[in-house]
Parts: sequence; structure tokens; C-alpha cells
Amino acid sequence: MLSKAQISLVTSLQHKKFRKQHGLFLVEGIKSVLEFISSNYQIHSIFTTAEAAAKMPNLPQKIKYVEVSAAEFHKISTLTNPQGVLALVHLPEAEAFDWTIVRNEHSLLLDDIQDPGNLGTIIRTAEWFGIRQLICSLGTVDAYNSKVVQATMGSLARIKITYTDLVDFIADAQLPTYGAVLHGESIYKTDFGKAGLIIMGNEGNGISPALLEAVEHAVTIPRVGEAESLNVAIATTIFCSELTRQSLAKK
Amino acid sequence: MLSKAQISLVTSLQHKKFRKQHGLFLVEGIKSVLEFISSNYQIHSIFTTAEAAAKMPNLPQKIKYVEVSAAEFHKISTLTNPQGVLALVHLPEAEAFDWTIVRNEHSLLLDDIQDPGNLGTIIRTAEWFGIRQLICSLGTVDAYNSKVVQATMGSLARIKITYTDLVDFIADAQLPTYGAVLHGESIYKTDFGKAGLIIMGNEGNGISPALLEAVEHAVTIPRVGEAESLNVAIATTIFCSELTRQSLAKK
Repeated sequence: MLSKAQISLVTSLQHKKFRKQHGLFLVEGIKSVLEFISSNYQIHSIFTTAEAAAKMPNLPQKIKYVEVSAAEFHKISTLTNPQGVLALVHLPEAEAFDWTIVRNEHSLLLDDIQDPGNLGTIIRTAEWFGIRQLICSLGTVDAYNSKVVQATMGSLARIKITYTDLVDFIADAQLPTYGAVLHGESIYKTDFGKAGLIIMGNEGNGISPALLEAVEHAVTIPRVGEAESLNVAIATTIFCSELTRQSLAKK
Repeated sequence: MLSKAQISLVTSLQHKKFRKQHGLFLVEGIKSVLEFISSNYQIHSIFTTAEAAAKMPNLPQKIKYVEVSAAEFHKISTLTNPQGVLALVHLPEAEAFDWTIVRNEHSLLLDDIQDPGNLGTIIRTAEWFGIRQLICSLGTVDAYNSKVVQATMGSLARIKITYTDLVDFIADAQLPTYGAVLHGESIYKTDFGKAGLIIMGNEGNGISPALLEAVEHAVTIPRVGEAESLNVAIATTIFCSELTRQSLAKK
């Protein structure tokens, strides 16, 4: 049975302000919840219908479960077709970057990505390709927005995400920078080396002027047809794939 | 001023049945409408607010325009944030495949793609990379669904799309077939040659068993991280990018 206070807490977490206030965010769906349970994240509590609970045997006992009816679940769900399970998860402590990763691998820098679906897809795809550190500008949509969490399909649990001023970060990092632009060298002819910063720009405006000044390698995805642009999640995918191709070829 | 009959016609085109019955589909947004005007498609009529019309000077005179108020436009729009322009466009005649393209280039075969956003993104991305022929299974979502049209950002106007039985098509085509699967040869080590059929499977189930039998080259996108899967539009992007990389490298 859901109390009014519980409904109010859960629904409030759809807003960034209340996520910060409560230090919690929402994870919904069987697969995503299971991924967070087996990650380093701390689970606060799990709301589940009896039907969904039956599909998840062997859940850890130490977590607080609240069983609710399907009708009650609809009141807290963020989805049109709820799967009957929703977890409140503790926001991670604001962490410093993992400099060991940054210095030795490729990190993805996102400059004011606005669309939650785009950020979620970028997280899922980047994680597939083994990217372990994502650095977002302060103007990028919150990765703990429930639409982002949903679109990552659990990959959010396995990738390090930090929000910071990208110009300062690049100055500190002292690593090669590669920016996705419309008129640069072909991505297929760019040697991405062993480590570096891959910078992707905002959906409408691309990389901001201040950041563009810090880009050493202007990199372009060759266009064969006539489409005017590529979606930023699609462009990021192509960068991650090419990084992986080059890295596998060097092994 | 919009008549009831006009509202009813336009809104009916959100359903495939009525698109077929009237031989029309909807294109919305300034950029998309302009792309269709300058394509081979035949425009039936254009509904526009005075504000949107002012942003589109030099529209061809021979098209039938209906000027409507912003309030009226909301009644026919398919978007949450309408741009004030919507075109009714004639569905193309059901065409045979362009065998010249099929025999000399790479064609994309889509096996029961369900999500309109995925199909739209695939069309936009494939067109960027110069794919000119898309062949969809009969179970694939209709490319003239307004959500698909929207997501293609105008690229739909420049790519040939045919719906057919893919097993029969492959048998007729007699070309190398490459299927996206989870356990095959690395896409980066696969030589895609000069022409061939790239087969992408359904969101949940992948390539259907009957079609899988016709796949000569099982091709996999190497996974470095732990994500369980990639979205089908993302996977298609990686195939299109790698085809382009190989083709540019051979020039």
C-alpha cells in the first residue's frame, strides 16, 4: 500500500531540484533495476507489483521492498507501459574525475547536450564501446533525469559521469583534443592515438566557440548523401566505433 | 479558415489505412516541407500560419496553400511544438526496386523494425552515408508514418524505400548478404566488397530465423564494455559508417 508521502517522494524525483534535495533518482524497468542492484550504486528502496516481483527471483534481502498494486504502480511510474518495478537509488557522491582513465583512455566530452534521449543513447553506446569516463558541460541535461536513465538501458550503472566546466577541464587535462565539426579532417583518416578527449557539441549549435578554440583536431564524418546533419547520438556512435576499430587494429 | 472536412482529412493521415485510402501522407516543419517541395514528390497542399509563411519566401506558386491561424494549426499538427507548416504529399507509386542501385551499391534490408523513431533515424543516417535503396520487410513500420517522416529530417525525400518479402528478394538478388548478429565476424574485419545486402533485425528479436538462413556473412559489432545490446538505429549507423570507411579507403 502506497502512502501519499511515498507517491509524493517518487514523483518529485522527476525533477532535478528534488533529486538533489533527496539525494535520490529513479530507475524503472526490470532489466535496469537489476543492473543497478548488481552495480556499486546504493539502492534506497524498490517499489514492485507482485507480478513483477515474481519475475525477479533472488533479489537481495537487505533492500527495502514496497509491494504495490498495479493501479498504485501507475501513480508512480514514469512510463506509458510500466513493467511494475521502480527503484529509488542514491545519487553518487560528486566525484573527481578518474585521472587514470582520462590519461590512458579516450574520454567523451559532451558540450550542452539537451535531449534526454540523446544523452541516454550516448551513454548506452559509449559503454558498449568501453568508454569509461563521460565528462559533461554544466549545461548538459542531468544524467539522472528518468528519461536519460531509461534510455541507457542500465549502462548508466557502469560509466563514470562528471559535470564540470569543459574549458577548464581541457586546460587541466593537457591531452589531445578531437572535436566533431562539419569541416575538418575525415574521421577515418584521423589517428586518435592511445588517449584523448573527444568533444561532441550541442544538438542545434555544435561545439561552443570557447570550446572550439581548445580543439586541436577538427574531425568530420564524411557525408556521401545530402542530409544536412546527423543526430548527435548518431555522430557520437560513429566516433566511438572508429575509436574501437583503430584500437583493435593496433592490438 | 479550416473546414471540418480539412481537419478530418489531415488528422486521418496519422493512420496508415487512411494514408493508403487518400494516397497522401503528412510532412511537418519548415525544413522538412522545403525538402519535399524541392524533391520529386508531388505536393497536394500546404497548410501554414502567416508567421511560418513569412519564414519561407519564394515558395512555388503552383502549390495550393491554406492559411490558418495558430489556434487552427494546433488542431491539425502532429507535434507538441508546431512550426506552423504542414504539407499533404502524394504517396509515391509502389515502385519496383532500382536494380541498378541494388546490383552496384550496398542496400539496407530492414527486418520488421517496429519503432518509428528508429526507422526515421535509420533513413536520415543511411541517406547521409549515401545509401540510396532501403528495402523493408512487410512487417516494418510504415515509412510514411508521421513520426518516421519527422525523424528523417527531410532525408526521406531522397532515398528509395520499398516494402517486400525479404526472403524472396534475397533469392532474386543473388548478391552477398551481411547480417547484423551478436556472434559473428568483427565488422571491422569484414570486407563488404562493392555491392551487397546489409540486413538489420527487429528491435527485440533480431533477424528472423527464415532470413538468418539466407545470411552468408554473420557480422558483429565488437563489444568492449558490458552493455547487453545496441539500439538498432545505432547498429545500422555503425554498419553505414564502416561501409563508407571501406569504400573511401578503396578510392
